Amino acid sequence: MWGGRFTEKPASVMEQINASIDIDRRLWRQDITGSRAHCEMLMRQNIIPRQDGEAILNGLTQIEQEIESGAFEFRRDLEDIHMNIESRLKEIIGEAAGKLHTARSRNDQVATDFRIWVREAATSAMGGIEELRNTLDTLSQTHKDSIMPGFTHLQPAQPVTLGRHLDAYAQMLGRDKTRLEDCARRLNFCPLGAAAMAGTPYPIDRDFTARTLGFEGPIPNTMDAVSDRDFAAEFLFCAALCGIHLSRLAEEIILWSTPQFGFVRLSDQWSTGSSIMPQKKNPDAAELVRGKTGRLNGNLVQMLTMLKGLPLTYNKDMQEDKEFVFDSFDTILLCLEAMNGMLSTATFNTGRMLKSAEDGYTTATALADWLVMNLGLPFREAHHVTGAIVKMAENQNAKLHELDLTDMQKIEKRITKEIYKVLSIR
Amino acid sequence: MWGGRFTEKPASVMEQINASIDIDRRLWRQDITGSRAHCEMLMRQNIIPRQDGEAILNGLTQIEQEIESGAFEFRRDLEDIHMNIESRLKEIIGEAAGKLHTARSRNDQVATDFRIWVREAATSAMGGIEELRNTLDTLSQTHKDSIMPGFTHLQPAQPVTLGRHLDAYAQMLGRDKTRLEDCARRLNFCPLGAAAMAGTPYPIDRDFTARTLGFEGPIPNTMDAVSDRDFAAEFLFCAALCGIHLSRLAEEIILWSTPQFGFVRLSDQWSTGSSIMPQKKNPDAAELVRGKTGRLNGNLVQMLTMLKGLPLTYNKDMQEDKEFVFDSFDTILLCLEAMNGMLSTATFNTGRMLKSAEDGYTTATALADWLVMNLGLPFREAHHVTGAIVKMAENQNAKLHELDLTDMQKIEKRITKEIYKVLSIR
Amino acid sequence: MWGGRFTEKPASVMEQINASIDIDRRLWRQDITGSRAHCEMLMRQNIIPRQDGEAILNGLTQIEQEIESGAFEFRRDLEDIHMNIESRLKEIIGEAAGKLHTARSRNDQVATDFRIWVREAATSAMGGIEELRNTLDTLSQTHKDSIMPGFTHLQPAQPVTLGRHLDAYAQMLGRDKTRLEDCARRLNFCPLGAAAMAGTPYPIDRDFTARTLGFEGPIPNTMDAVSDRDFAAEFLFCAALCGIHLSRLAEEIILWSTPQFGFVRLSDQWSTGSSIMPQKKNPDAAELVRGKTGRLNGNLVQMLTMLKGLPLTYNKDMQEDKEFVFDSFDTILLCLEAMNGMLSTATFNTGRMLKSAEDGYTTATALADWLVMNLGLPFREAHHVTGAIVKMAENQNAKLHELDLTDMQKIEKRITKEIYKVLSIR
Amino acid sequence: MWGGRFTEKPASVMEQINASIDIDRRLWRQDITGSRAHCEMLMRQNIIPRQDGEAILNGLTQIEQEIESGAFEFRRDLEDIHMNIESRLKEIIGEAAGKLHTARSRNDQVATDFRIWVREAATSAMGGIEELRNTLDTLSQTHKDSIMPGFTHLQPAQPVTLGRHLDAYAQMLGRDKTRLEDCARRLNFCPLGAAAMAGTPYPIDRDFTARTLGFEGPIPNTMDAVSDRDFAAEFLFCAALCGIHLSRLAEEIILWSTPQFGFVRLSDQWSTGSSIMPQKKNPDAAELVRGKTGRLNGNLVQMLTMLKGLPLTYNKDMQEDKEFVFDSFDTILLCLEAMNGMLSTATFNTGRMLKSAEDGYTTATALADWLVMNLGLPFREAHHVTGAIVKMAENQNAKLHELDLTDMQKIEKRITKEIYKVLSIR
Repeated sequence: MWGGRFTEKPASVMEQINASIDIDRRLWRQDITGSRAHCEMLMRQNIIPRQDGEAILNGLTQIEQEIESGAFEFRRDLEDIHMNIESRLKEIIGEAAGKLHTARSRNDQVATDFRIWVREAATSAMGGIEELRNTLDTLSQTHKDSIMPGFTHLQPAQPVTLGRHLDAYAQMLGRDKTRLEDCARRLNFCPLGAAAMAGTPYPIDRDFTARTLGFEGPIPNTMDAVSDRDFAAEFLFCAALCGIHLSRLAEEIILWSTPQFGFVRLSDQWSTGSSIMPQKKNPDAAELVRGKTGRLNGNLVQMLTMLKGLPLTYNKDMQEDKEFVFDSFDTILLCLEAMNGMLSTATFNTGRMLKSAEDGYTTATALADWLVMNLGLPFREAHHVTGAIVKMAENQNAKLHELDLTDMQKIEKRITKEIYKVLSIR
Repeated sequence: MWGGRFTEKPASVMEQINASIDIDRRLWRQDITGSRAHCEMLMRQNIIPRQDGEAILNGLTQIEQEIESGAFEFRRDLEDIHMNIESRLKEIIGEAAGKLHTARSRNDQVATDFRIWVREAATSAMGGIEELRNTLDTLSQTHKDSIMPGFTHLQPAQPVTLGRHLDAYAQMLGRDKTRLEDCARRLNFCPLGAAAMAGTPYPIDRDFTARTLGFEGPIPNTMDAVSDRDFAAEFLFCAALCGIHLSRLAEEIILWSTPQFGFVRLSDQWSTGSSIMPQKKNPDAAELVRGKTGRLNGNLVQMLTMLKGLPLTYNKDMQEDKEFVFDSFDTILLCLEAMNGMLSTATFNTGRMLKSAEDGYTTATALADWLVMNLGLPFREAHHVTGAIVKMAENQNAKLHELDLTDMQKIEKRITKEIYKVLSIR
Repeated sequence: MWGGRFTEKPASVMEQINASIDIDRRLWRQDITGSRAHCEMLMRQNIIPRQDGEAILNGLTQIEQEIESGAFEFRRDLEDIHMNIESRLKEIIGEAAGKLHTARSRNDQVATDFRIWVREAATSAMGGIEELRNTLDTLSQTHKDSIMPGFTHLQPAQPVTLGRHLDAYAQMLGRDKTRLEDCARRLNFCPLGAAAMAGTPYPIDRDFTARTLGFEGPIPNTMDAVSDRDFAAEFLFCAALCGIHLSRLAEEIILWSTPQFGFVRLSDQWSTGSSIMPQKKNPDAAELVRGKTGRLNGNLVQMLTMLKGLPLTYNKDMQEDKEFVFDSFDTILLCLEAMNGMLSTATFNTGRMLKSAEDGYTTATALADWLVMNLGLPFREAHHVTGAIVKMAENQNAKLHELDLTDMQKIEKRITKEIYKVLSIR
Repeated sequence: MWGGRFTEKPASVMEQINASIDIDRRLWRQDITGSRAHCEMLMRQNIIPRQDGEAILNGLTQIEQEIESGAFEFRRDLEDIHMNIESRLKEIIGEAAGKLHTARSRNDQVATDFRIWVREAATSAMGGIEELRNTLDTLSQTHKDSIMPGFTHLQPAQPVTLGRHLDAYAQMLGRDKTRLEDCARRLNFCPLGAAAMAGTPYPIDRDFTARTLGFEGPIPNTMDAVSDRDFAAEFLFCAALCGIHLSRLAEEIILWSTPQFGFVRLSDQWSTGSSIMPQKKNPDAAELVRGKTGRLNGNLVQMLTMLKGLPLTYNKDMQEDKEFVFDSFDTILLCLEAMNGMLSTATFNTGRMLKSAEDGYTTATALADWLVMNLGLPFREAHHVTGAIVKMAENQNAKLHELDLTDMQKIEKRITKEIYKVLSIR
């Protein structure tokens, strides 16, 4: 493959550490797409004869069909997807296959393939986000009046609605989507033409290939073109932060599924049992979504660690770029779908939520606000008075609206029976 | 501080783990700015009397001056910057101070302060990036014709110019800047009015406070408003990726400063010596820039780990949000400045670079291209022929342009003396 | 400081990025200890005159007193703790101070100081672990018969005791302690004598200094001696994993403190209130312990990232080694103490726990086991029968021991009234 | 699988997120080993009839052969390796298969399998380390007198030998090995008997199973037994730190392979070429070893993030425990082998190293030491004098031993011609 300067074959461990075909075969479609655009450009610019170009294009189409049908044999000794395809092309069309690589290097080729892949992945991830947001929006609408305790520090704080609670996640996901949009927009420039990193003396048309492949234009600096993996790191961050959001929602589903909370009941479709405890109904999918945060964070760390301190331009370390992007993409999509499935088939126990809001003194802030607005107390003082009233309620084992007016007046004599309007949650 | 329901004082270790004043005092200016806007809104909406409002505003101005002059005493027992300021306000203007907290909670207050701070930090970081880019642009211009070896795998690959090499970093930094812009734009919505997380019954004007503080508008979902720290994570990622770029440049400065490379000589201002080896001149600042990558990555991991699995809304875990953002900001700014200082005072040894390009067979690709363009060889074959010629040169311990034509013709007989035009680097 | 080869002063940003005194001043005591041992060795070996050595030792004692009393002025322009102390020594005893640095470099000096510090930190951390384990042991003993639901997937699984539950954490902490022991043992070799990294021509006695400083012996390879920071990474890992354990316990304290669980009530000393919600009692310390996991993980990532790809021997990147070790030590100690304080003053609501165990069908496994042991069913079949019985109980809204025998016999006719012995939890 | 309480089948995405068979099939041998020991214990204790036990043991042997021969069909709908084996056992021996699961749960089963696997992995990793150390030891011996420049800050510092340089890595690997030993020792307790987490009423013999499986004894606390994954985190840390060491060595191989350094030449077996640049010979394997640091660090972060905040006992999040341990094991073994292969076939250019040591003023410290030892200068002054001499040599473009005595005496008049003994490197 590398020509006349090498006299020994690679060691077998060398082949093992070096081969990327098991990972990068996933780029096959992007590789063929990129090669087509490059080939068309070479023909248009008369860099290769039209006849050879046509043969290449036909050969690529045949390879595409072979891979789609499963007939294509991926070979590890050919190291990567690019050589696998090129080698097969040579089998199909003969020596002309070698011309496809004119004015191109694996460095700009792989960077192009990978950018196309990440651009598509971002779009798919946005789709997954949109579907989950739709479910959240529908549920928020359904439960816009379902009262539940709002929590801070996981302690009941103030009454909110389940609708607003779920909508908070829709908001997070909305931001996740804009981050992916930014990522896809920022990466959308084409490395082709950078060749190994210094460009090429052939009279290529970089605008043509960029445009054909849906990019905004070519990447201006050829060294940057082959050494940049920002887009991969940015995609990994987008996935990691989205995963964090899902982990928060997952945590709540897990909490709410306990008999102690009892706010939600997952469907059988989204529960599992136990091999030894026959009564168990476990929220496995939510736990896995939460647990997969580790993977998403780890993948981001992988990339940032790998890129640290690499001199220009391409270094082989960068072969470790794709596996983790593929994994984070698969993971985030799976988590979004799982969350969507769980939520759309779950049953919310709104009665239990309402009762829980009543039990938790969640109207205490409303009481304090009443004291400010009606008695003119400075807020800090109203807060103090309310604290004393809550303590009294605790001692009496009563809810706030069950307290006697006279008892409350012992603490602040100007309180009137109007107070009961804010003490009850409904 | 928490009123009538508590009968015991906090344990001293509790105070120690809980107090954030040593960290969040850095938000003092944003806190005063936020309080001013909130106070003006309360007055406009007649929620507090104008007279109290004016007293509050005057008190805040006095506090601002005290902090600026260093006269303000920060107290740990008051836990955080918000209580420190409010407590001092009470000392200055008396009970009316308590009214400032009407229709506000520490939850929306701190989220507002922190967003303003990060917005400003993003702007400063963009400034630091711009300055370094200017330096890189100037140097790229100066060295647009300075030939050096371009590297892949840290092996000489093809000749490039120092100008293009340095410009690759300008490109990376350009992307870093757009990421910070996106971050600053995405975060620019105002939490004020969310109160603890459920909003407030007071007739507040959220648009007014948002507008006054330079936000695009209020955050629609009040629960999201107090629990969202996406902006902090995104800022940390922006800083980490920028740090990765700087680590690559730092690595090259370190390499290039070795006598083996000898491509650059740092000024005395940006070098250090050794306490025991009198001949040493070390590129400490570049090493520190490279090393601080760890800190930037670690800070990002901190935030993503901390946020994992947190149920809505505010949890005290989130107090661990600011220290690392402050640190990443300080770090990235310092690294940008250091890199700027190093580069603007460095001396590039362009003679050495040129010589190094000549020694490294970097014109081999040009030779292969010549074989394709002039002899019509398929590229893969030209590559093979070139490999054989390079091997011959190595065996003769010669540079490519020093080879005999007849020797080359033994490998490919159609080669003519025209070949020497591409073999020499100049 | 670096002698005659430098003609310009460091840039101010250079000083800023380079100075470590704000961090490494914490090593002052270890630095003096290390210098004493080195000085004594120099005297014993007649490398420096006894008179000079005595002056140095007296000077060091004076400096020790100055630092302890707060009289010592740390100067940033002297960069680090080592130069601060040496410079002060020169002020006190004059030129002889310069002899202390004979046969020593800052490289072996700082490595020695840091190892001593980490060794002591490991001991302190083990002490903190031991105290928390004692509390857990006491509580486990007290609650060895307090029945509670054991959870898997946060769903009630089988009855356990609170004693066993708390003891599980004691076990984790026990392992944490042995990891710290291994770390302290593995690091306990002395870098002194490695000088800059190549050793020294002076007739030093490395065994003497090693022994005097409590090390097992000198580090054999001088290049390893100055470039190794394994001990720092290992300490950070020990702290991070211990922090993970504490985060699990913290999570449970937070869950158990909710009104929904109601298993535990923290004392006022270990709770906080809210500035706006007067009824709140928040488990802040537990949340902070959980949140600080991020910091501990981040610090570990910092170190591993920083060390990646560093060539031998000392590189300035390694100046970023101490801050995070200091921080993880402080953090883990604080978390251990906070957890200890919370648990020793908490009130466990064992009545609520018992009731919760009864509500959760936690005896289902015992029922399945009964079917196997008394009716000879294969376990998988017993599991199936039990599942059907639990489902029936759910439909009847009954606990297992409240079911009718005849109803159960409809599912498995051989069940006898003996079954009730295992259905009731007590 | 979960019996009578479930009325709906899992959703297909649920199956997808839940299934672990693609990962945990790798535990098949450990699972069979563990089941054998459990089955023997059940027979010995008369918990299951000997006849059933024998059938089970024979069935397990048949399954073992089927898996070894590739005849076994792994089914995703059976979720994990444990159910795959149990289900096949039932096909082979019928209903008696169900008795194997008596007094056992998947929770203690998987924990046991995984511990056995990690124990074996630690042993293999230690073997890989040992082989690389042997190579390093041999090379160190061969090059114990090969002089090269020792570097600090990647600047030539003092002369060292290549032997000592390589031995520094042997030292690091030696520590890596002891860490793995500690890990394997600490994990070597047996979870079997903990069942789901509360133990089992059957009269089992935990000591027997523990002993049979090579453990030191059973894990005392049954809740800890099923929820502990410390050993996995510790193994990941051991691999990560070992990877850091290899990344340092890899960095040096990459540096040394540049024409600028020229200290080493990798064999063709361990080099790759370029598809476009025929002269290239790239140290891909070293770059990949360096790049895989990211993966090892990321895997550790994955585990620590995943475990954060998990309440007791088993949570499904923990299913994310094995993939990354498998990956770190494969990675570290591959990296060790690759490094071993590279080093044992590399050619060190000791002539170039020696010349490089001479060029770098690396004897300056020896000069300073001479001034101290022969002229009695305090070290700091000797350092200053030496700096001035080096500066003079730089200005004269001379090596230190090429300087005129009279020139040196202008700087320090007491210098004699004895000085030349230390100025020359040989």
